[in-house]
Amino acid sequence: MNRPHTFAGNPLNRAEYERRDADWLAARERDAGSRFLPLRQLDVLLDGEDPARLAWISGDAAAGLDGPRFLLGLRDGAAHFAVDVSEDNEDLAEGDERRFVDVRTAGTLVSAEDAGIAAQARAQVDWHARHGFCSVCGQPTEALRGGQQRTCGSCGADHFPRTDPVIIVVVTDGDRCLLGQSHGRLSQMRMFSALAGFMDQGETIEEAVRREVLEEAGIRVGAVRYHSSQPWPFPSSLMIGCHADALTTEVRPDKVEMLSVQWFERATVRRALAGEDAELRVPASFAIAHHLIRAWAEGTA
Amino acid sequence: MNRPHTFAGNPLNRAEYERRDADWLAARERDAGSRFLPLRQLDVLLDGEDPARLAWISGDAAAGLDGPRFLLGLRDGAAHFAVDVSEDNEDLAEGDERRFVDVRTAGTLVSAEDAGIAAQARAQVDWHARHGFCSVCGQPTEALRGGQQRTCGSCGADHFPRTDPVIIVVVTDGDRCLLGQSHGRLSQMRMFSALAGFMDQGETIEEAVRREVLEEAGIRVGAVRYHSSQPWPFPSSLMIGCHADALTTEVRPDKVEMLSVQWFERATVRRALAGEDAELRVPASFAIAHHLIRAWAEGTA
Repeated sequence: MNRPHTFAGNPLNRAEYERRDADWLAARERDAGSRFLPLRQLDVLLDGEDPARLAWISGDAAAGLDGPRFLLGLRDGAAHFAVDVSEDNEDLAEGDERRFVDVRTAGTLVSAEDAGIAAQARAQVDWHARHGFCSVCGQPTEALRGGQQRTCGSCGADHFPRTDPVIIVVVTDGDRCLLGQSHGRLSQMRMFSALAGFMDQGETIEEAVRREVLEEAGIRVGAVRYHSSQPWPFPSSLMIGCHADALTTEVRPDKVEMLSVQWFERATVRRALAGEDAELRVPASFAIAHHLIRAWAEGTA
Repeated sequence: MNRPHTFAGNPLNRAEYERRDADWLAARERDAGSRFLPLRQLDVLLDGEDPARLAWISGDAAAGLDGPRFLLGLRDGAAHFAVDVSEDNEDLAEGDERRFVDVRTAGTLVSAEDAGIAAQARAQVDWHARHGFCSVCGQPTEALRGGQQRTCGSCGADHFPRTDPVIIVVVTDGDRCLLGQSHGRLSQMRMFSALAGFMDQGETIEEAVRREVLEEAGIRVGAVRYHSSQPWPFPSSLMIGCHADALTTEVRPDKVEMLSVQWFERATVRRALAGEDAELRVPASFAIAHHLIRAWAEGTA
């Protein structure tokens, strides 16, 4: 990989040790030199165009913002926070120049570093918004360690942000690869992609690949090779990208999940990667699926 | 890997589609041919010794057991369930032959297949025991799809079992590898292991490796190579095993987390793997750390 995946490349030091000190954290929240990134309904505030960039608010200006803050990390000595302004009515957007943008789109507009920070911020803000109560006893929880933990005030249970591992795989059979089309709007665009699915409890990455491919395509898989991984903050997945060898070739797609699963010849896939195939489209370079497909098509997998 | 890691090798078909049918599930729960694995306080019921095996209870006998059931999967047409009997007072253990054993120990006593099933069962039972309430609104949730989901009866939020990705890495510098010793009882046994840590939101596997090694050892890391993965059901981790190249050599251990982090020569590590070194012990083959260390020491990493 010459260039990291979109949403990789977060440059912040997450301050794992500093954030355990509640006094230090409180001082950073009040510090005029700290920087605050507003998110509203999980959309992130951007500044400018071509290139766009994250719209950090200085500590002074952020003092009036209403909403919980979570420490993302440190850079050049300055603490960087996400602040969830979903309940704040202040008009932070200013026409076209400063506006809230969904993180998926933002990932295509900003630098690799800013996209990485946006991914962390979206995952973290979403997790807190959905974990105000204790899953063990139902009572309220409160955030600790700048947002790396929530603890129940009643039963004392600790809760930690979650990251959901997802396998995504290009299965190959010689000069053919297996791509699938989910139900939904993508099916109208001749778009096929790598097969993917959430890992279950109690399985390895390789076992998850074999299970998902069998479930979705009816194909048995032998060797599995890890390629690379991508954070995917919708809401908080880790895409674990693999290539795998098919042991069988007769496709029996799962009709519930998949509209179609098919073998595609390498020449067709190469044309699709160049945007020049009439029958097949593949995901853009924004998605790890693109890079898994390309690596196989170009013989570097 | 000639032999899969302990807790890999679960042979059950997880019945992803069948389990969505509530009538089918209810019939399987009443079916005399179904099999039920009791867990009490997360310990699993075993039968026999040398080898020990999971003590499945038949559908008839299990009808009287008090506690929630979760569908693990299908094998040879029979549904296999875990049943959490923590609240049931029936004396299921019968002396030495049939007894409840913690899953960590059970993993060393039973077959690879049984260990894999025990891992899935422990992770699933634990998750349900800790998720009776909705983290979004604090109201009760109920299990669906045989335990692959819980849904809030009040706000309707869906919740899914979690798997926490953890990186574990042997960092190398030529003929030396970097091993660490956490605080705690292991330090009394000259035991050193691979460095490890939970992945954060918004980072790749490779970024998590670099962050953890920098935090725990003060060492900067370049190339990272994935080796293999292991389910680790305490409570529900996925160990992602890697090797990595050191870019710096001066160790500055994190004093909070680590008692010691040191470089060890390959000859020393080889003696330790054979149980023949006076100064160093490494984890047993039960743990992925053992296989990561061995692969490097034997030159197959």
